[in-house]
Amino acid sequence: MSDQLIVAIDAMSGDKGTAVVLEAARQVLNNRTDVKLLLVGQPEVINQHLVDNPLPADRFDIVAAEDVVTMEDSVAIALRNKKQSSMRIAVNLVKEGRAAACVSAGNTSALMAISKFVLKTVPGIDRPAICTTIPAMGGHTHMLDLGANVDCTAEHLYQFAAMGSILAEAIDGVPRPRVGLLNIGSEDIKGNLQVKEAAVLLQDSQLNYAGFVEGNEIFSDAIDVVVCDGFVGNVSLKTSEGVARMVSHYLKQEFMRNPLNKLIGLIAKPVLTQFRDRIDPRRYNGASLLGLKGVVIKSHGSADAVAFSNAIDIALLEISKDVPAMIASRTELAAAV
Amino acid sequence: MSDQLIVAIDAMSGDKGTAVVLEAARQVLNNRTDVKLLLVGQPEVINQHLVDNPLPADRFDIVAAEDVVTMEDSVAIALRNKKQSSMRIAVNLVKEGRAAACVSAGNTSALMAISKFVLKTVPGIDRPAICTTIPAMGGHTHMLDLGANVDCTAEHLYQFAAMGSILAEAIDGVPRPRVGLLNIGSEDIKGNLQVKEAAVLLQDSQLNYAGFVEGNEIFSDAIDVVVCDGFVGNVSLKTSEGVARMVSHYLKQEFMRNPLNKLIGLIAKPVLTQFRDRIDPRRYNGASLLGLKGVVIKSHGSADAVAFSNAIDIALLEISKDVPAMIASRTELAAAV
Repeated sequence: MSDQLIVAIDAMSGDKGTAVVLEAARQVLNNRTDVKLLLVGQPEVINQHLVDNPLPADRFDIVAAEDVVTMEDSVAIALRNKKQSSMRIAVNLVKEGRAAACVSAGNTSALMAISKFVLKTVPGIDRPAICTTIPAMGGHTHMLDLGANVDCTAEHLYQFAAMGSILAEAIDGVPRPRVGLLNIGSEDIKGNLQVKEAAVLLQDSQLNYAGFVEGNEIFSDAIDVVVCDGFVGNVSLKTSEGVARMVSHYLKQEFMRNPLNKLIGLIAKPVLTQFRDRIDPRRYNGASLLGLKGVVIKSHGSADAVAFSNAIDIALLEISKDVPAMIASRTELAAAV
Repeated sequence: MSDQLIVAIDAMSGDKGTAVVLEAARQVLNNRTDVKLLLVGQPEVINQHLVDNPLPADRFDIVAAEDVVTMEDSVAIALRNKKQSSMRIAVNLVKEGRAAACVSAGNTSALMAISKFVLKTVPGIDRPAICTTIPAMGGHTHMLDLGANVDCTAEHLYQFAAMGSILAEAIDGVPRPRVGLLNIGSEDIKGNLQVKEAAVLLQDSQLNYAGFVEGNEIFSDAIDVVVCDGFVGNVSLKTSEGVARMVSHYLKQEFMRNPLNKLIGLIAKPVLTQFRDRIDPRRYNGASLLGLKGVVIKSHGSADAVAFSNAIDIALLEISKDVPAMIASRTELAAAV
């Protein structure tokens, strides 16, 4: 088929291993007849799992990769010594045009470094950024950077804003996404130097800049894109995961406190399940490495099959919109700096 | 009474005004017979509210202050032009020894600047930090800085760690509080330069340094004190507020979705109320301005009477433990740098 979408999957990545990756692959292939997957990894491991959980034969290929990038590997080791790893070969497949995107649940720093080295960034973008979708009161927000760039200049933050805006427009169909700059107050005098300088660049740009936003406003409906450096973004994202887990823990604990509460919990179970499904982090799994000449999606290391399949779905969505080309074609945004 | 604890209250501060402050004062005076309050503000405004809501006559004094620091006032304006403000006079009362602590729900930057200017920092501390208590899975965590210091050196982070450790020991009775440094990964190579350097200082110190922690671990039981710069801390704190609000919103929405869910919500109401009480942010209201030669507590601007009274309780607790003296007496910690 000429219009078949081909995605390379790092089948050796993630804490839960190949079984989860293949189960996610099966879910995606069931839902999408236009997709073919390249399963990258040790053929004997993949084939062994396929015995128990077969995939339709004409819908996947195995691409051999003998090595694996571990979570402990440094960027230098991953880049220099692991050229035969499943992660590297999955990214290579995108570079060679054999796959339109790749998905990995492996070491984030290694995936970013390999992707940057192999695929390169699009013109006008100095550094790729990690961007994910965050649930908000009435929809969701795109947030970047989430950890790729610890120290950022105002220009980097500006480029993140441009990329996030393009992504939100492409994925959500929002005509002029509202871009907020994460800060510790809404007044002009607040914040560090980079943020203040980035605010000036954004005010002078063609982006729909909505001003400074504080941490709580990430989850409001006031903005579509939240921009910050990778240190702040990573802390904020992990904080939100921690709070959500703690709140769920407390809720469960109250419904288990005594026999009466347990009975009430049984009665309320359908409602509590609807609630849990709604804040299910698996629905938001899959972060985009934006700014590369190719679609690379990072799945959470601990993703299960549902979560990993969501990451593959995001890859498919970005392929269909050709997000890298959209970012490249908007060099005027970057040139406006 | 010689052992009477005297606290100065900025009665003009906060979004909800004097009525809320006086109601909080009444709650504290009801619970604590050993406390006397100095209500600082415009006498006619305070007296007018006292008509409807009288306080026991021998348990408070009004200290006249004609001016008010507004939320919009810059630090410079607050410091130079508002010497007769309720905030400034409340801090002056601590300096003069007429009050053992002061509490304000006003402009945070102004309160910090005025407190630093009037009270000065204790020896060994370059910059005061804002510290608050954060709920965690099985207790709580002390986190600092939350916004006073946007750019911090490793030495500043080290001093925050020392102050947080002293506070946790004094307030919670934990013998050697575990101190974590907020970072974007637990590996030594992760993070920005300041964090990496601070880690070295902490490893070589007498503090019980527990290593790097990520955003989600703030809410675990792995640590007692979380240290970060004010930008990161403020974003993390506000993020947690935003997530908690969103999760509560979703929970409410599910229980309101249709008549059946509403009925189940009525049945589950006692359990949901217990849950809500447990994550009630009012229980954590009151941030300490640590490192000053005096106890200064910042209440949330939107605090109601319950929340504001909690901030006064924190002031009383820090007076009883003489936290500023404890920080000053541990100059060996700072000198160890």
